[in-house]
Amino acid sequence: MSLPKTMKAAVLFGEGDMRLVNDYPVPEPGAGEVIIKVEACAICGTDPKILAHGWPNHPPYGEFIFGHEYAGTIAALGQGVTEFATGDRVAVEPHKGCGVCANCRDGLYNTCLNYGNIAKGHRHYGFSFNGGYAEYAVNHVNSVYRIPDDMPIDVSTLITTAATSLYGIRRIGGIQAGETVVVSGPGAIGLMAVVMARLMGAGTIILAGTRPERLEMGHRLGADIGINIKEVDVVERVMALTNGVGADAVLECAGTTQAAVAAVEYTKKNGRLALVGIYKEPAPLNVNKIVQWNITVAGSKAEGERSLAQALALLSRGTIDIAPLVTHTFPLAQIHTAFETVIERRGGALKVVVKP
Amino acid sequence: MSLPKTMKAAVLFGEGDMRLVNDYPVPEPGAGEVIIKVEACAICGTDPKILAHGWPNHPPYGEFIFGHEYAGTIAALGQGVTEFATGDRVAVEPHKGCGVCANCRDGLYNTCLNYGNIAKGHRHYGFSFNGGYAEYAVNHVNSVYRIPDDMPIDVSTLITTAATSLYGIRRIGGIQAGETVVVSGPGAIGLMAVVMARLMGAGTIILAGTRPERLEMGHRLGADIGINIKEVDVVERVMALTNGVGADAVLECAGTTQAAVAAVEYTKKNGRLALVGIYKEPAPLNVNKIVQWNITVAGSKAEGERSLAQALALLSRGTIDIAPLVTHTFPLAQIHTAFETVIERRGGALKVVVKP
Amino acid sequence: MSLPKTMKAAVLFGEGDMRLVNDYPVPEPGAGEVIIKVEACAICGTDPKILAHGWPNHPPYGEFIFGHEYAGTIAALGQGVTEFATGDRVAVEPHKGCGVCANCRDGLYNTCLNYGNIAKGHRHYGFSFNGGYAEYAVNHVNSVYRIPDDMPIDVSTLITTAATSLYGIRRIGGIQAGETVVVSGPGAIGLMAVVMARLMGAGTIILAGTRPERLEMGHRLGADIGINIKEVDVVERVMALTNGVGADAVLECAGTTQAAVAAVEYTKKNGRLALVGIYKEPAPLNVNKIVQWNITVAGSKAEGERSLAQALALLSRGTIDIAPLVTHTFPLAQIHTAFETVIERRGGALKVVVKP
Amino acid sequence: MSLPKTMKAAVLFGEGDMRLVNDYPVPEPGAGEVIIKVEACAICGTDPKILAHGWPNHPPYGEFIFGHEYAGTIAALGQGVTEFATGDRVAVEPHKGCGVCANCRDGLYNTCLNYGNIAKGHRHYGFSFNGGYAEYAVNHVNSVYRIPDDMPIDVSTLITTAATSLYGIRRIGGIQAGETVVVSGPGAIGLMAVVMARLMGAGTIILAGTRPERLEMGHRLGADIGINIKEVDVVERVMALTNGVGADAVLECAGTTQAAVAAVEYTKKNGRLALVGIYKEPAPLNVNKIVQWNITVAGSKAEGERSLAQALALLSRGTIDIAPLVTHTFPLAQIHTAFETVIERRGGALKVVVKP
Repeated sequence: MSLPKTMKAAVLFGEGDMRLVNDYPVPEPGAGEVIIKVEACAICGTDPKILAHGWPNHPPYGEFIFGHEYAGTIAALGQGVTEFATGDRVAVEPHKGCGVCANCRDGLYNTCLNYGNIAKGHRHYGFSFNGGYAEYAVNHVNSVYRIPDDMPIDVSTLITTAATSLYGIRRIGGIQAGETVVVSGPGAIGLMAVVMARLMGAGTIILAGTRPERLEMGHRLGADIGINIKEVDVVERVMALTNGVGADAVLECAGTTQAAVAAVEYTKKNGRLALVGIYKEPAPLNVNKIVQWNITVAGSKAEGERSLAQALALLSRGTIDIAPLVTHTFPLAQIHTAFETVIERRGGALKVVVKP
Repeated sequence: MSLPKTMKAAVLFGEGDMRLVNDYPVPEPGAGEVIIKVEACAICGTDPKILAHGWPNHPPYGEFIFGHEYAGTIAALGQGVTEFATGDRVAVEPHKGCGVCANCRDGLYNTCLNYGNIAKGHRHYGFSFNGGYAEYAVNHVNSVYRIPDDMPIDVSTLITTAATSLYGIRRIGGIQAGETVVVSGPGAIGLMAVVMARLMGAGTIILAGTRPERLEMGHRLGADIGINIKEVDVVERVMALTNGVGADAVLECAGTTQAAVAAVEYTKKNGRLALVGIYKEPAPLNVNKIVQWNITVAGSKAEGERSLAQALALLSRGTIDIAPLVTHTFPLAQIHTAFETVIERRGGALKVVVKP
Repeated sequence: MSLPKTMKAAVLFGEGDMRLVNDYPVPEPGAGEVIIKVEACAICGTDPKILAHGWPNHPPYGEFIFGHEYAGTIAALGQGVTEFATGDRVAVEPHKGCGVCANCRDGLYNTCLNYGNIAKGHRHYGFSFNGGYAEYAVNHVNSVYRIPDDMPIDVSTLITTAATSLYGIRRIGGIQAGETVVVSGPGAIGLMAVVMARLMGAGTIILAGTRPERLEMGHRLGADIGINIKEVDVVERVMALTNGVGADAVLECAGTTQAAVAAVEYTKKNGRLALVGIYKEPAPLNVNKIVQWNITVAGSKAEGERSLAQALALLSRGTIDIAPLVTHTFPLAQIHTAFETVIERRGGALKVVVKP
Repeated sequence: MSLPKTMKAAVLFGEGDMRLVNDYPVPEPGAGEVIIKVEACAICGTDPKILAHGWPNHPPYGEFIFGHEYAGTIAALGQGVTEFATGDRVAVEPHKGCGVCANCRDGLYNTCLNYGNIAKGHRHYGFSFNGGYAEYAVNHVNSVYRIPDDMPIDVSTLITTAATSLYGIRRIGGIQAGETVVVSGPGAIGLMAVVMARLMGAGTIILAGTRPERLEMGHRLGADIGINIKEVDVVERVMALTNGVGADAVLECAGTTQAAVAAVEYTKKNGRLALVGIYKEPAPLNVNKIVQWNITVAGSKAEGERSLAQALALLSRGTIDIAPLVTHTFPLAQIHTAFETVIERRGGALKVVVKP
């Protein structure tokens, strides 16, 4: 497959200044790299923030292509690549570690100690390195995962989100068979956490949120019980549902301090709480309860530990249909509308996918 | 060995009202229980609080003997006891689980779901059940541990404290060989955490506190570096000492919200923080950092998981002399003075031992 | 509910000498015990061996009621029992630990160090203590689990088997999402291992056995691929199916030395192999491969660690119908025929249930 | 520091044909690599086998420099190296993973799925890639570890061995504080296992072997009890020493099938056995006991998981003097004599060090 010289791309030229460019140079694959013909790239909740404010160590404005939840087809192989063939359908992982620091050598590349240091080999696709709002993207093989033939390309962009949710579960030692799990916050990550927990053997799954349609979606995806935290006290309700014992495992995906504080309160003695949200400020956690109830609180950074491979394996069985999570798709030419749809939550927007 | 009918004991008659009694009935051992001739009982930091305010589900005032860090000699055996013989020198563990709830059956008796329910078999010696400020105490065999012949009885009372520290270490997955460990708070638990970490293969041990003599004691017990947090910024200092990476493992034993907040800040990416202190109020932890740095925060409830046996094994090798931690001893008749010594920190009091 | 004085029971009077008795005394519940009206008891593969040869520390011949996979209804409560009410439908766990030894206190009651010592509180129902081939059985609450209303009583007897399979999975650290799992030996435990692995998030499940109808049953229960080891070389086949890498996780349930030897050969680098079978002789394992491939081999003793509760939670979701595993049922009066059906594998017998 | 063009090296020209060469080209460092001025290289038990038979995928005869336990000083830095400076004293790790396969990305580079594939980036220094019996060696930074200033260079060559022992301990979940540990086989790895276990908090350490002087050396290094397996039945003795319970943790370093078989027999219920030896044939392990006693058997491949860093940290505290393990040193010119000393175990040879 011969690649064109130039491509269409959505390029950041400054804060809030995203422009469609028609003649962006198509990247060339280095050793161990592949070129992906991007067919779909979902908008992550972080993307509007990058659009508005950039990101530490981002590529220079005028060259910066963001977007990190993309999928497509292998279009070219760099030197020495044997892991993939052109034509393979793939999804990507945003983090590629340096491979040299202590964390990377321990397999914890999502917390690479050389974060943002391109010279050392670290890349955060769509953040510190170009990503997927373009016709082509270059990726190291370590950040590429083959997707099943029958998985629609739009749906494949959800794999990154699924991996984030699944990594949260892994960070608290997995879900033991039959455990009562609370998922707090029915955004894309929270809803996918419901899916992952269900597929990993959870017992009762309780989903806490504020919007009835999201709770309903959660129910469809595997949650047993929805709690509208605007209507009932979530702590009281979870404790009542668990006979005063609390939840075995909690996945806090709402990213508010109130949600984090409440999560500690309804976690069981010896229970585990994963913090998966993005928090803007310190949360006044009940540390006395954390001690007296022997609770574990684990922060969960992005995907990590090849969670994409695991999420793909779970989803590829097709037991739960995640397609409804993609509520909108737009061609690349309408990327500005796509972002507005996300930012303004137009039409109950959940995952919005851009198709270059 | 025939037991007397009555004994001397320090009995709580009300809030702040501890009286020496000469004719308290000596307990009789039930099935699976032993009578211990108490020879030493250390005053825990919680004891002045019990003296002042009681404890939930405590035995009735007028009958309530507290004190939970005691050691002595087996004086009598209840029915079916084969684990011990009279004359055995032993130390005790405060928690005895119900043996029936899910946590107890999982070995997590320190977080027994029937806490305080004596009928179900739970006992918290010195809290919800009588303890060691008396000539004799009755204990279930599950809460009794044999001590080495050459361990002085005063020192043996420190085993409970050592087990608390060690359990904190276990709660964060142990100390991996060579890890950099910060111990925050050089009280008895913090100092013993230094000892345990040293004996379990820690690399550099950093001790953070406010009093020079305590930091000096920590150095004597195995800490490599002391940080006086009144003089330097503890976060900056730990980060500087670790080349900006932070500590692998942190044991927060100070029990202040400031210390807990700071501990999160100087914990490494993927690092683990055990909360071992008693906290009076919520701590505004940097949850964003906990997420982004993939940090694990584990509350550590008391001893648990037979940590006393492990602590005993470590200390019985005699590599580190912990005797200096016992700064004062008093006969039972002077228990009021002993408590004042602790409360007012007279003479640099660290561990104060009462000898019935 | 008032209990009758006597009951029907199948009693062992000697090796191979099982007799139906009409006037066996109905047991009375001690403290913390319940009486179960047994409604169904499945025949385990071990039962014919007990019938033929007894068991170490079994109750005296003439009094010995065996059978350990039973389910029924709570008929009476002993002193202090609050965990159950009469009328509750329950299944049972064969092992009850002493609660005092180091293993029990660590939650590992299935390997109680006081095995067979009734005085210390250990019981192995149906082995060292009376079991379920009778109208009534007495059980400590620790060995009783509530079953869902809609789970047929015959099916409930499979919970013990399911727990054995699930414990094997736990012994190798669980099944990670998407892992390739080989189950060796499609007997009841192997087939249930397929079910458990499927419900816990396994990726591809490969089932290896000799009988086509069992492989077909495995397929129905969740296995993706069946290997008839009489027709193909199982090692070659698994390696081919995994691109030469081998299986992530292996559950050896066949209990033959050949199967154990082969299992090591098709386990992946860093893979884990659970031995769940009953082996009659030493197996010449390729220890060099175990070392060079960094393989973990874990023996899995019975159920343990409240696996019944977990298995129940998984099965109660009803995703996989396990009812077909019960191929035959007989009234207690025909227990001899029931045993012959198992021993001679009449009519493709898989699980045979006796109904007192 | 400018490097010479040529160097002295011991080069393999064929099976059993090792020749001293004076004009071997000094390697040049690639990106991310360093040149080490080798000052000492210990002879591993595997080296005589490589001398005699080569190794799969070894460099061409006539160019093949083996030796993998070396230490020295950084002499030159390749492009982009910031982790080291010239003059740094370092020891090395034999395995460098490809960084791309699933195992490497999980941090398990010692079981790289591209073993022996130099093009993919895998290197096994001294096996599939040149090693340390030469004046200079080239290493990727991932396989280089800084050593303390006060650690003698001869002793530094023992770090690789120490890491092998420590990795065995890690493979069985570490040593819990106070555990009874049996080390089987007092060769260099076994003796170092004694040292590591002692420094990681083991309780009683039992060393089993055949030669009194080795058992005596083990005692000096931290073993509490020596068992001469020629004189007593090792299984009976360990069981007697542990009151019939068996050892919590066993490190089998002898590499004989008898030793592996015996190790299973004296491992405790729920105990863990690490196989660290090199076995020539299958070992008839008592798999029934492995199951019934819930035992875990873990193969331990080489070092892995940055065990060198951990071993270095432990040894650098200087609590145990390991210098006596180096019994002989020879200049490179006498490398043939050095090998004969090892092969014939001349003069009680334990570790023999060659100094280029």
